[in-house]
Amino acid sequence: MANVAILGAGAMGSALATPAAAAGNRVRLWGTWLDDDLLAELRAGRPHPRTGVPADPRVELRDHGDLAAALDGADLVAVAISSDGVLEVARRAAAAGLRPGTPLLLCTKGFGRRPDGTVSLLPELVTAALPGPLAAACPVVAVGGPCKANEVAAGRPTAAVLAGPDREVVDRCARALATSAYRIERSDDLAGVETAAAAKNVYAIAVGVCHGLTEAGGQPWHDLAAATFARAVAELRRLVAAVGGREETAIGLAGLGDLEVTSLSGRNRLFGARVGRGQPPAEALAAMAAAGQTVEGVPAARLARDLAAQLGLDLPLLAAVNRILDGAADPAALLGDAVLPG
Amino acid sequence: MANVAILGAGAMGSALATPAAAAGNRVRLWGTWLDDDLLAELRAGRPHPRTGVPADPRVELRDHGDLAAALDGADLVAVAISSDGVLEVARRAAAAGLRPGTPLLLCTKGFGRRPDGTVSLLPELVTAALPGPLAAACPVVAVGGPCKANEVAAGRPTAAVLAGPDREVVDRCARALATSAYRIERSDDLAGVETAAAAKNVYAIAVGVCHGLTEAGGQPWHDLAAATFARAVAELRRLVAAVGGREETAIGLAGLGDLEVTSLSGRNRLFGARVGRGQPPAEALAAMAAAGQTVEGVPAARLARDLAAQLGLDLPLLAAVNRILDGAADPAALLGDAVLPG
Repeated sequence: MANVAILGAGAMGSALATPAAAAGNRVRLWGTWLDDDLLAELRAGRPHPRTGVPADPRVELRDHGDLAAALDGADLVAVAISSDGVLEVARRAAAAGLRPGTPLLLCTKGFGRRPDGTVSLLPELVTAALPGPLAAACPVVAVGGPCKANEVAAGRPTAAVLAGPDREVVDRCARALATSAYRIERSDDLAGVETAAAAKNVYAIAVGVCHGLTEAGGQPWHDLAAATFARAVAELRRLVAAVGGREETAIGLAGLGDLEVTSLSGRNRLFGARVGRGQPPAEALAAMAAAGQTVEGVPAARLARDLAAQLGLDLPLLAAVNRILDGAADPAALLGDAVLPG
Repeated sequence: MANVAILGAGAMGSALATPAAAAGNRVRLWGTWLDDDLLAELRAGRPHPRTGVPADPRVELRDHGDLAAALDGADLVAVAISSDGVLEVARRAAAAGLRPGTPLLLCTKGFGRRPDGTVSLLPELVTAALPGPLAAACPVVAVGGPCKANEVAAGRPTAAVLAGPDREVVDRCARALATSAYRIERSDDLAGVETAAAAKNVYAIAVGVCHGLTEAGGQPWHDLAAATFARAVAELRRLVAAVGGREETAIGLAGLGDLEVTSLSGRNRLFGARVGRGQPPAEALAAMAAAGQTVEGVPAARLARDLAAQLGLDLPLLAAVNRILDGAADPAALLGDAVLPG
């Protein structure tokens, strides 16, 4: 039994509480200053608005003012904050008593920028946000794999990947969280899992565009969708290798597995489908924002493009997605040029 | 311009006539003794019953009695016969004037058995069905990749893979058939492409089961579907490597690309979905047979299992699909055991 603090009561944070509690841990779920309404629903015994699943009664709910209490005695801290807020929460956690040696299980996905404007993976930025002694002492463990929050929350069978350079730390986290439904693959490839998790949202937009073409015309564009999927995996492999990760990560659960689930459902696919149906990207994004839906793949597309440029990679599908986001005409032709042979 | 004979006027044979004609070739489409009704529709200018697309008016339609006329002067013969009939048609083509040196573009997909009962890939069996001089002189080229017949017929963008050991032959076939919509990747990995094309039907059943679970319960099982997809690709890699193919084939268009499109639609997915919704496999198969739908992945599952045993491979997902086809209870648990980590 471990003492698990989950920071962020959004979809993934509240979802992770399901296996964490089912595995017999003490679990505290802390909501940020944006999560008051979500916690109120859970306290009333109602389903979480984003996962449809009520909190396990054993989970202790903590308000944003109670961060120190949420962290008190924690053996393991899961960070499930939006990429906008993750660095601020890391700083607050450090000030609120995060203990040296506590692994930070990073559920937040995305790329970020260093102070000099270059693109970086999130673990580096999270570590840099901590004071020196904590930065050196709190290992970051990436959470990847095909895990939809609503399914993890409901306890349906899911394969997660935990990755970090220190095998003992990864083992400890995996032992604490694994259940018969929430199964965990252990990996040493932190950079590969982080990169795949962030980039898959971009590529899911491209697959979504093909599904939108199908919906718009009533005729399937599945051949193009599948060719796009295959090319996305090929570009993931190159991107993962270029950041120092392992190709195996890109063609396993954390790479193509996560891309598959993200292409089956979720906001990145939905956004892509709107564009494929002919809606201008800016309009599609605005419509989804109005419904409270952020599309992580859109900022990630810009960051991934800049990261690829930093690494000297030419990734035609990534470039095509960026041009589509710029509003270029004929997304189908752009995707075809990027993904078809010859 | 080449003289192209297409043997088989079913979905894929008639579909291939679209790029073959668009590329400027002389195209003859020959129907087997089972295709009379299909040819009658095309002759009447109506859509092909299985693709929904009428024949290009430049395509010459030939009845089963006119095989010699269909083959006369052919530079290239595409074989698009069901796996049941392909060896018989190969024998008839040999008797009807198939010329030595003519490449056989094999669209038929599946495994088969040698006279001694061991499992083999189709190219070996097709070659063995020809008289000695022709067998040595007619190179088989595999057609793979994510190509749905209805989309190829309609001229929507598609990535095909042509594979054979002789680069010059593959180049010749690719040059003859490629159009701006039907794009062709060239490969030397005949065994890998054939194996991936046959085995993907089996794995698409497994993904279909997950989609059936979703449909039955109204709750998504996408995490399991994606983990199943990832494991399927991992098993395809091992199977392809074991037959002497290249891993790159399994993680490219002909492997995961074709698995993706087959998991998006088609009869193997539909059959799996019926089983996932709770229909006994035998009943699901009978219902689909009554609607004229053969499910290639079902016999392929048995053959792939035997092939894996011949090769000394332990493939848990392949074994799980076979147990599901045997009518084992709780397909979800079987898939979970086979594909989830730990």
